[in-house]
Amino acid sequence: MMAASVLPPLPRARVKQAVAQALAEDLGDAGDITSTAVLHADARAKAQIIAREAGRVAGLDLAAAAFRAVDPEIALTLRSADGASIAAGAALLDVEGNARAILAAERVALNFLGHLSGVASATHAIVGAVSDRKAKICCTRKTTPGLRIFEKHAVCAGGGVNHRFGLYDGILIKDNHIAIASGVGPAIEAALAHAGHMVNVEVEVDTLDQLHEALIHPVDAVLLDNMTPSELSQAVKIINGRIISEASGRVTVETAPAIAATGVDYISVGWVTHSAPCLDFGLDYASTD
Amino acid sequence: MMAASVLPPLPRARVKQAVAQALAEDLGDAGDITSTAVLHADARAKAQIIAREAGRVAGLDLAAAAFRAVDPEIALTLRSADGASIAAGAALLDVEGNARAILAAERVALNFLGHLSGVASATHAIVGAVSDRKAKICCTRKTTPGLRIFEKHAVCAGGGVNHRFGLYDGILIKDNHIAIASGVGPAIEAALAHAGHMVNVEVEVDTLDQLHEALIHPVDAVLLDNMTPSELSQAVKIINGRIISEASGRVTVETAPAIAATGVDYISVGWVTHSAPCLDFGLDYASTD
Amino acid sequence: MMAASVLPPLPRARVKQAVAQALAEDLGDAGDITSTAVLHADARAKAQIIAREAGRVAGLDLAAAAFRAVDPEIALTLRSADGASIAAGAALLDVEGNARAILAAERVALNFLGHLSGVASATHAIVGAVSDRKAKICCTRKTTPGLRIFEKHAVCAGGGVNHRFGLYDGILIKDNHIAIASGVGPAIEAALAHAGHMVNVEVEVDTLDQLHEALIHPVDAVLLDNMTPSELSQAVKIINGRIISEASGRVTVETAPAIAATGVDYISVGWVTHSAPCLDFGLDYASTD
Amino acid sequence: MMAASVLPPLPRARVKQAVAQALAEDLGDAGDITSTAVLHADARAKAQIIAREAGRVAGLDLAAAAFRAVDPEIALTLRSADGASIAAGAALLDVEGNARAILAAERVALNFLGHLSGVASATHAIVGAVSDRKAKICCTRKTTPGLRIFEKHAVCAGGGVNHRFGLYDGILIKDNHIAIASGVGPAIEAALAHAGHMVNVEVEVDTLDQLHEALIHPVDAVLLDNMTPSELSQAVKIINGRIISEASGRVTVETAPAIAATGVDYISVGWVTHSAPCLDFGLDYASTD
Amino acid sequence: MMAASVLPPLPRARVKQAVAQALAEDLGDAGDITSTAVLHADARAKAQIIAREAGRVAGLDLAAAAFRAVDPEIALTLRSADGASIAAGAALLDVEGNARAILAAERVALNFLGHLSGVASATHAIVGAVSDRKAKICCTRKTTPGLRIFEKHAVCAGGGVNHRFGLYDGILIKDNHIAIASGVGPAIEAALAHAGHMVNVEVEVDTLDQLHEALIHPVDAVLLDNMTPSELSQAVKIINGRIISEASGRVTVETAPAIAATGVDYISVGWVTHSAPCLDFGLDYASTD
Amino acid sequence: MMAASVLPPLPRARVKQAVAQALAEDLGDAGDITSTAVLHADARAKAQIIAREAGRVAGLDLAAAAFRAVDPEIALTLRSADGASIAAGAALLDVEGNARAILAAERVALNFLGHLSGVASATHAIVGAVSDRKAKICCTRKTTPGLRIFEKHAVCAGGGVNHRFGLYDGILIKDNHIAIASGVGPAIEAALAHAGHMVNVEVEVDTLDQLHEALIHPVDAVLLDNMTPSELSQAVKIINGRIISEASGRVTVETAPAIAATGVDYISVGWVTHSAPCLDFGLDYASTD
Repeated sequence: MMAASVLPPLPRARVKQAVAQALAEDLGDAGDITSTAVLHADARAKAQIIAREAGRVAGLDLAAAAFRAVDPEIALTLRSADGASIAAGAALLDVEGNARAILAAERVALNFLGHLSGVASATHAIVGAVSDRKAKICCTRKTTPGLRIFEKHAVCAGGGVNHRFGLYDGILIKDNHIAIASGVGPAIEAALAHAGHMVNVEVEVDTLDQLHEALIHPVDAVLLDNMTPSELSQAVKIINGRIISEASGRVTVETAPAIAATGVDYISVGWVTHSAPCLDFGLDYASTD
Repeated sequence: MMAASVLPPLPRARVKQAVAQALAEDLGDAGDITSTAVLHADARAKAQIIAREAGRVAGLDLAAAAFRAVDPEIALTLRSADGASIAAGAALLDVEGNARAILAAERVALNFLGHLSGVASATHAIVGAVSDRKAKICCTRKTTPGLRIFEKHAVCAGGGVNHRFGLYDGILIKDNHIAIASGVGPAIEAALAHAGHMVNVEVEVDTLDQLHEALIHPVDAVLLDNMTPSELSQAVKIINGRIISEASGRVTVETAPAIAATGVDYISVGWVTHSAPCLDFGLDYASTD
Repeated sequence: MMAASVLPPLPRARVKQAVAQALAEDLGDAGDITSTAVLHADARAKAQIIAREAGRVAGLDLAAAAFRAVDPEIALTLRSADGASIAAGAALLDVEGNARAILAAERVALNFLGHLSGVASATHAIVGAVSDRKAKICCTRKTTPGLRIFEKHAVCAGGGVNHRFGLYDGILIKDNHIAIASGVGPAIEAALAHAGHMVNVEVEVDTLDQLHEALIHPVDAVLLDNMTPSELSQAVKIINGRIISEASGRVTVETAPAIAATGVDYISVGWVTHSAPCLDFGLDYASTD
Repeated sequence: MMAASVLPPLPRARVKQAVAQALAEDLGDAGDITSTAVLHADARAKAQIIAREAGRVAGLDLAAAAFRAVDPEIALTLRSADGASIAAGAALLDVEGNARAILAAERVALNFLGHLSGVASATHAIVGAVSDRKAKICCTRKTTPGLRIFEKHAVCAGGGVNHRFGLYDGILIKDNHIAIASGVGPAIEAALAHAGHMVNVEVEVDTLDQLHEALIHPVDAVLLDNMTPSELSQAVKIINGRIISEASGRVTVETAPAIAATGVDYISVGWVTHSAPCLDFGLDYASTD
Repeated sequence: MMAASVLPPLPRARVKQAVAQALAEDLGDAGDITSTAVLHADARAKAQIIAREAGRVAGLDLAAAAFRAVDPEIALTLRSADGASIAAGAALLDVEGNARAILAAERVALNFLGHLSGVASATHAIVGAVSDRKAKICCTRKTTPGLRIFEKHAVCAGGGVNHRFGLYDGILIKDNHIAIASGVGPAIEAALAHAGHMVNVEVEVDTLDQLHEALIHPVDAVLLDNMTPSELSQAVKIINGRIISEASGRVTVETAPAIAATGVDYISVGWVTHSAPCLDFGLDYASTD
Repeated sequence: MMAASVLPPLPRARVKQAVAQALAEDLGDAGDITSTAVLHADARAKAQIIAREAGRVAGLDLAAAAFRAVDPEIALTLRSADGASIAAGAALLDVEGNARAILAAERVALNFLGHLSGVASATHAIVGAVSDRKAKICCTRKTTPGLRIFEKHAVCAGGGVNHRFGLYDGILIKDNHIAIASGVGPAIEAALAHAGHMVNVEVEVDTLDQLHEALIHPVDAVLLDNMTPSELSQAVKIINGRIISEASGRVTVETAPAIAATGVDYISVGWVTHSAPCLDFGLDYASTD
């Protein structure tokens, strides 16, 4: 399993931009009218982000950036890290500073942290379910619009790996390409003829017949879509280690072990990015010194 | 239940901006290198977005805008509308045009549609679970960063109603405000003194004692947080119709009926926006004429 | 009168964005070609922003941000605050640093300060004219495009209060809505049926007949538009404290006292944001040490 | 006086950007919640922008763009043009289309039109006051932040001319430059040595002594700041047509004739852009066919 | 050689953004003050973009977009296409419409077309110099900041192919990685362990010793940097077709044939994107009908 | 020749924006996947930007800003300055910090520095070729889209001067204006009538006849386009110092001396901005302490 320290840092510019967009969404033009009305302009507060349930952390950089964006003078102390497993009740981040500023950033910080830790925790659960097999769990392009880069990072924080980031950094020939290009063979031939030499070519197949046809050509990987475990086992035998094998199709914690047992190299899962439930966090206030 | 036609249209500028951001995320600089390599530049295709499961639709405008943004010459025919209930297998949108362009927009269109229809369907399920009661289901600020405006719209498409859109358009005094302001009473007094005359004041209470203290002041609404159904029933009696009552706290399809039975006016639910699973859609290709 | 310290801080992101836009407008691509030609690159200067006439201050944050945006090493010392009353000749801000940088920011700083202090001073004049009455002076949506958030802030600095910030944070049914909806009653009924529970509903009436019709429904406030003081007095009697009363229509320092004397709760004034003359400030240079 | 047809069109990109910013300010995320609640989604309306007072028009392009940005299907008929003089009651723009869309754009359209026609009308008044003299009325850099390009256009619509647009397109040596550069002479010498050959050099002088010193050098223009009409007359004699003369300093409709009578070539006026009151317009609804 | 029709279209959003940025740079706030002063607002013109020298075309989409962005009513007729070889004097694009608008867009259109056709022509020259060999000419990340996507496109228009678009879509282990990672072997091992399965791994080697060390590991490609033709020949023999070979290092039209003769698969050239001279185009005016 | 210290600083906002755009282009969403895979997250490095060939420096601010934007904790030591002449092997900038961050910024830093130093060096070569004459070398609007402001700065760093920055800050009547306006005379008359008083008017002439016609009017400068040295000499005699003379037309290091010998005031050169080859720089790594 990937150690937390190996996680690449998120690009600073992207973190700032995403946090600014989310704060604009929550603060609008008039700002936090409740705190302005209720709290003194100089009131100070001390608070902690606490996990309300156990899981895997992702998104702490974004949470911290939310407080920093509202008021750079808020003091922040990190007590955890993306990729760490936490128990319910664990403290992740201490904040101390102007009370209005802390409350203005609270929801944005928690929304990022809850969403991304949800992705990390869901990934971690499936990774754990197949930990006795060689199969790696990887994510797809079925991500939440605007958050792909952060969800890809959360998948890594959960112990998974990333497939291509978009349409631009890998060739994956899917059913529709095959249909329009009139067959697996012509589609692969065209891809190999025009692909850059730094890019791999993967082809999606739904049947063993298609797999045989694909293997005639020097593709780098094959995506075995919606096959039963028994079909997958046969496919793995046919491939025989010559190229990378990847299984996909409504993978869950329950179905993953049987799929991994077939010996595939990768299992790609859309669910962890498009349907993982939020992990619950709260901001608990301590009295000000 | 809200008719689809009553839904306000999403602001054009926001739809364009969100779609452009999502397309940039998926296409990067090199674009769809698979379609470029595999498909002829002039290849044309006809396809349909099909629901792979039953649910409530939201996000069709964004899906359509994704195709239009990639190529304004793609012909689009809407076969459904946000707020409509659909069966598995239903066709929602016909697209016809350049094959590369259709494939370039496909995933962005489906990601918006799947996520927002997931929100609408989750809302619709809870709305249905309390349909014999007066309680309205409303959403919270626990939304996906960057997508709040669209998720609020999806909640309406699911038959729910919107609470405030952000910190700027309603006063909600929460536990942290009360703690920092030294009590429910002082917090409410401060809010009433400084609130604009166009804004309502709501106060969150955790106990019946706090409720009694709140009712001393002319607040407009009270948020009864994490109370049991029996506490809620008592609270509704105490309030006695003088102000708006709203219940919150880990509401689900299972727990909502008992909460609604207490007679509260609103039930606010974070789950529909932060944890609703995606509704599954696909783009099915037909051969080109 | 509102103390300066109660003013909520302007959102940092909005201040930075507005200042960047104004500096781009003034500096273009070639920058300050006069200072570049005339002054040595290392020349330093000490200067003060001085009020050329008495008034109420607003916009100091923007003025300071202009200098900081051009050169973060310019030393700034605030000698006043938004919401303060100043005499002619008063010093508001000391700046010291690179001479070219100070001159590059000067006009942008003064333009913000002059415009917003003009708004604050105009508001303050009307607030003063009605200070013996309960009526609060509030502003409208008749603001300078792009500067609404700052003008709303300046109105508060002048002792006024804010009405809704835009079309999104309050329901105000106006003559055109009434015309298109076929009457005051149907318009109000529709608004009450669809308004969120955090939003107040106000209706504009031009006659006492319309007022009577409006009062049949549970609206929260009524805008008495273009009524004479005598009509306003009658209206206040009819309303009898049940809901909020607001008067509007070409209010000036001269007409405000008679309007306030009628007993209305609010007087809304477009003039302070769309037509207030600039307050005059200059940047006076002292010799460098 | 400049004919309306000679006005250069405003750059399309700038008009779109300014209108988008103003609409975002007014509509926020939730949009026009009054019209959404009160009006049917398909309701249509016919309306006209009417002048409530006489004046000079500027900003019609921005007003039209506001309607177009909200809904491109609103039909627009222009009945006037920037630079035209209008009487009270004159119709400027007919709009017809979706009622919600028209109401959503109304205030933004009127705010641009009112502000810029205010600038044009103020300019036109001063231009008229000196029409029997050769002096041209020109504007300054004392403009409303974010709106300079539009206010410069409005000045032309009022019959005035533009001075430099910013610090980047003309050299104007002011008192502070002279102080830091240790005198009029050294400042001018430095400017002439480093100025590009496409740019004119103007120097501001406060006294006739400074004027004499300036005239030793080949400057292109001199700005006579805060001089009395009698000093200006002397200055004009001293200059004797060799270079351009420009007068400045708290110019109004009342003081302009005496200044123009001195024979200066230009009179620059800050008031028309920083303090001109709004011209009043309204949107009058007609019943829908 | 690549046919023009195979070139993927440039993303519409990127073309619009780049053209808007370039027009803003050239037009500023005041616009084309020469044409405004000299030409009648309604003057019309007919003109053609003409090649002043022979070469390969790239950038026509950007040139056309420049005219369209200034005035959508300018009629455009394309007479060539990206990837076409043209003779001196050839007409590429006919424009007809408002004269001021055509002149406002002219320089931006020509700057894009000249720069990108320069890249395409330089590429085409090297491609032609090695056309009797199997080696493909590919570009590098040594591109003009802000224009990489367009220069990559121009390289294809010249008959070359693209290497990775950025640091994000391919692994290339260079000398600095090897130094910091303490050797070719450890660097490759780390890369293979962490690389995604859709990405190829290439390693740069300077000597045949490093090549031998690299070949111990299953890398996909090797970059032979700054080797002499004789070293390259030895390297190709050592590699013996097992992996992709690529040569780099100050490649020009003169040196390319000898490099290609060694049998390498790819020759990467920085010069075509960072130092290719502009191809000369002009806009010739015809009289208006 | 201009001393380096006289160069005006580039606007901070523009430098940050250009660097952010270039980094986004190179890093995409996934970032530097090679360094992430190969280098330890905490690895540190020391490196120097070294000139691989002699030339004139420009763009150091942008290079430094690239490192700072990726990681503000990278320590930077400037060893040269824009406008300095450097020998091959000279060190310009020391960087020390996180190894991944340094490698992520390297290419963007070098691309800016190489391109702009190429412009400065090309300019410097022509300036040197005419250093015994009074003619100044100036640039044109034939710049690389998006980089004009930086290229204009690089021209100054090379000892040249800037012509107008765009269409907005100087009037230059060219052949097309003359054609559409029906003659040199009418074009000049229109320009003089409408030009602002801060702007110079220059007219382009191709023949001595046109020059005579132009000189009838009070223009400020004349652009002698594509004339032979002998024609230029005649033109200079005709002009006789009354107005500024400028020569243009395919100027190179070889042709410039003969042009300068004719006595013209300015020689404008497109080549230095549109076709100057890159100056070669590298980042050399030293071992970490």
